Amino acid sequence: MYSEIIQGVRGRKRRFIARAITHVENNTEISSKLLSELYPETGSAYRIGITGPPGAGKSSLTDKLIQNYREQDKTVAVIVIDPTSPFSGGAILGDRIRMIRHYNDKDVYIRSMASRGGHGGLAQATQEVGDILDAAGFDIILFETVGVGQVELDVIQTSDTVVVLLVPESGDDIQMMKAGLMEIADIFAINKSDRPGSNKLYISIINMLSGMPHDEMTWIPKVVKTVALKTDGVSELVDNIHEHGDHIKRTGLWNQKMVDRYAKQVRELILNKQDEVFWDKQNCNILDKELALAHEKRKSPQELAESLYSND
Amino acid sequence: MYSEIIQGVRGRKRRFIARAITHVENNTEISSKLLSELYPETGSAYRIGITGPPGAGKSSLTDKLIQNYREQDKTVAVIVIDPTSPFSGGAILGDRIRMIRHYNDKDVYIRSMASRGGHGGLAQATQEVGDILDAAGFDIILFETVGVGQVELDVIQTSDTVVVLLVPESGDDIQMMKAGLMEIADIFAINKSDRPGSNKLYISIINMLSGMPHDEMTWIPKVVKTVALKTDGVSELVDNIHEHGDHIKRTGLWNQKMVDRYAKQVRELILNKQDEVFWDKQNCNILDKELALAHEKRKSPQELAESLYSND
Repeated sequence: MYSEIIQGVRGRKRRFIARAITHVENNTEISSKLLSELYPETGSAYRIGITGPPGAGKSSLTDKLIQNYREQDKTVAVIVIDPTSPFSGGAILGDRIRMIRHYNDKDVYIRSMASRGGHGGLAQATQEVGDILDAAGFDIILFETVGVGQVELDVIQTSDTVVVLLVPESGDDIQMMKAGLMEIADIFAINKSDRPGSNKLYISIINMLSGMPHDEMTWIPKVVKTVALKTDGVSELVDNIHEHGDHIKRTGLWNQKMVDRYAKQVRELILNKQDEVFWDKQNCNILDKELALAHEKRKSPQELAESLYSND
Repeated sequence: MYSEIIQGVRGRKRRFIARAITHVENNTEISSKLLSELYPETGSAYRIGITGPPGAGKSSLTDKLIQNYREQDKTVAVIVIDPTSPFSGGAILGDRIRMIRHYNDKDVYIRSMASRGGHGGLAQATQEVGDILDAAGFDIILFETVGVGQVELDVIQTSDTVVVLLVPESGDDIQMMKAGLMEIADIFAINKSDRPGSNKLYISIINMLSGMPHDEMTWIPKVVKTVALKTDGVSELVDNIHEHGDHIKRTGLWNQKMVDRYAKQVRELILNKQDEVFWDKQNCNILDKELALAHEKRKSPQELAESLYSND
């Protein structure tokens, strides 16, 4: 069954890719073995992150990017990272519907992923799922996140090129800066750019970028106007992604990104192992006993941690 | 100097509170000692988290909450958690200006905090800063976050009551669910409720909440309409926060929250220690040597982690 999955992933068989990803998502016993064995086959996919505020049109744009890359005969995998809801009990797929037309294309793989626990959590899981898809031979991997918080930024930064999608309604500069998106964009796409305000937003981003310190090695983010629903600006966006890819390959940044991801993954794996080993029955009991005391009778968390650590 | 800080915090002296917080933010050598010594004095502040999308009016609302609590003669501390920007080089304080009028009130303490590294990161730092303010004798601690991602949710969940601020423009249900805010709210405040669409939003939240499974122990989130700039609905909001506080105290949930925070803090402290101890010169060298190899010559991250871990 294990080697069947490996072979299935190598053969880019949807069913086995799905199984491998499920193992990774659930951090099962064999997930680490799968990832380890597939590692030598990774390193050639190009990873593109797409993020932006809710309602910016990420799904529409992703749909059109799939189409564009398919026209170039490239294979495409898409990972949609959704926050889970306790009401719906799972990832929200409401507006993924427009991507359905690609589901029958065997060279397109689309999957949504929800959050998972553990250290590194979602960002690590995303990278691992990316590795499976990379080993499966997809040329392009698109990561789409909703939300604009720190974890989403961590996730998206496992990508080679980050596209930040904005809409004319995104508001004034400060609001955008607050959203924490500015610092991670390699390319800004102003979507729904046929609406009023798109020029104003375009100019304010350009102005802001002109204040960035830079030398010849610096990538100055591109700004592209799109109307995803009409496919306007999509090929320009694809060109910009390609140009950014060339830039990071030429400057060694692509290699550096892979090295950083590798180092981070090793550190997270070790932390997870340490955490698991530390909290054996004995240490859990000591913590539980302390928790059963009234607040004012407890040692401080610092004292308890110190005594647990030094007696372990 | 160390005992001066402790005494200063106990005496609710602004200058020493600021110093203690700086130690905690920077995770200095004495921060753990400070927190440990102040621990017995914590446990009486009430922690309120306020979150919502950019532009919802969180600062205005926070301003009015400070005013309301001050009228009740309660002391108030506010921690504003800002994403850092590489362009501005620090936290963005643009729209905090309206809170300035409280800066001269010695029973109000306002501070902004930026992200920090390390495991647990911002959520842990926020809780620790809350502990300092708790020990300093503030009755009410308000945590305000911008952004709606997972870390922001983690941060806000170190609070006793979570207020999620929305505006009529927040869009349809699915957009809100996507923002991941729905699952954490104890109270929804629809701010700028004098704008069109506020009734529609009100009704859709009520409808959504009516589908929640519940028994007598369950808190059904309240929905309040506010116009923070005009102070409309603010006292109703304060009443609802108070009611939620009574509920969690009566049901034992308040105590449970404190127990959970304590356990989490102990776990994070141990992980940080393990991480620090593990990555000594020798292990760092082994990792660096592997990173210096070409991608295809490297062990898989899983193999390297395993071998580092078992030889440590």
